Amino acid sequence: MRYHKIPDETIRRLPIYLRALLTSLDQRPKKMSSQELAEILGVNPWQIRKDFSYFGGFGKRGIGYDIEQLTKRIRKILKLDTVRRAALVGVGNLGSAVLAYPGFKMYGFDIAVAFDCDPQKIGRKIKNVRVEDVSNLPTLKKRKVDIGIIAVPQHAAQQTADALVKAGVKGILNFSPCHIAVPKKIKVISIDIAMDFARLPYYTPVR
Amino acid sequence: MRYHKIPDETIRRLPIYLRALLTSLDQRPKKMSSQELAEILGVNPWQIRKDFSYFGGFGKRGIGYDIEQLTKRIRKILKLDTVRRAALVGVGNLGSAVLAYPGFKMYGFDIAVAFDCDPQKIGRKIKNVRVEDVSNLPTLKKRKVDIGIIAVPQHAAQQTADALVKAGVKGILNFSPCHIAVPKKIKVISIDIAMDFARLPYYTPVR
Repeated sequence: MRYHKIPDETIRRLPIYLRALLTSLDQRPKKMSSQELAEILGVNPWQIRKDFSYFGGFGKRGIGYDIEQLTKRIRKILKLDTVRRAALVGVGNLGSAVLAYPGFKMYGFDIAVAFDCDPQKIGRKIKNVRVEDVSNLPTLKKRKVDIGIIAVPQHAAQQTADALVKAGVKGILNFSPCHIAVPKKIKVISIDIAMDFARLPYYTPVR
Repeated sequence: MRYHKIPDETIRRLPIYLRALLTSLDQRPKKMSSQELAEILGVNPWQIRKDFSYFGGFGKRGIGYDIEQLTKRIRKILKLDTVRRAALVGVGNLGSAVLAYPGFKMYGFDIAVAFDCDPQKIGRKIKNVRVEDVSNLPTLKKRKVDIGIIAVPQHAAQQTADALVKAGVKGILNFSPCHIAVPKKIKVISIDIAMDFARLPYYTPVR
């Protein structure tokens, strides 16, 4: 079920809350107030309460949230409660960093296969993921992989996206610093590391 | 000058607008309407107009924005109109990808130096940036480097942040998937690639 009328900004923040909750699960007591969660994250508690209110509210004022329950509910809202199989295309520096990244498993992702066009890389295993020839990409349809990660050079980004869409992928995480065009039903989330960087000087006086 | 009362979300979107404007500078006519800009980015035109209204508005209704002027103003607001010197700490896969990333120059960043603790890497040049021993980090103060990029393994993230702050850095771009604690006057922007990923299933039905 897709929840309706929830602002994208709220959806953007839910994983941030989730990470903080998952991290605190080992250390903290069973309950946490929005005030405590806000302090961990350095945000306003009203923002957290407002975001949660879209889902009918998760806690009682003065009692706080049950961390385990809240974690479960956010996972369910974000549909992270089932393992999603993903394919990585491009095993250069960035792609290798993605394979080594510890965070994906925490959210239920399984990078099941990687593709490259470099014969030196094809057939190797990197972080337990086998690198296949990119010409195998159409096999994703049979392999129940429905999420693609693009980590190829900029000039190859669009053709990679086209191939992923053709192979039946429903969502794409794009690391190429360019816009990629896909059919409307396909969701693309682009990560441009330079763009995040570009906000920094605004908050940072010149020395 | 720091502009006041501008929501962080607006500041987050300005680099996105800027990138679209910079990309279109070569191809497009001199003017662009918020409608056209919105179409390129796949957002609502009212959002763009609202974001711009915080700065007194940039265009006239029905005439559109002068692209070059708008680009200049956004650069100025984001303080991207002077070159900022940055130091990268950690030249593993992710750090190497950062050095190879084409987007930083576009926003006026100069990654002037890189640090690592691996003797195999120290002294080498990667993408024209010299890798120095991490013990040289305190020299940043003299070298007019005031932005740090953390691309070290998670367990070394906090000590790297401490060293950067001690070396006088004012802003940090953090790629480690963990919270780092710094004094309040230091701005930290964290990029957690898994967290962006975690939004994808919400928009993506299971196959």
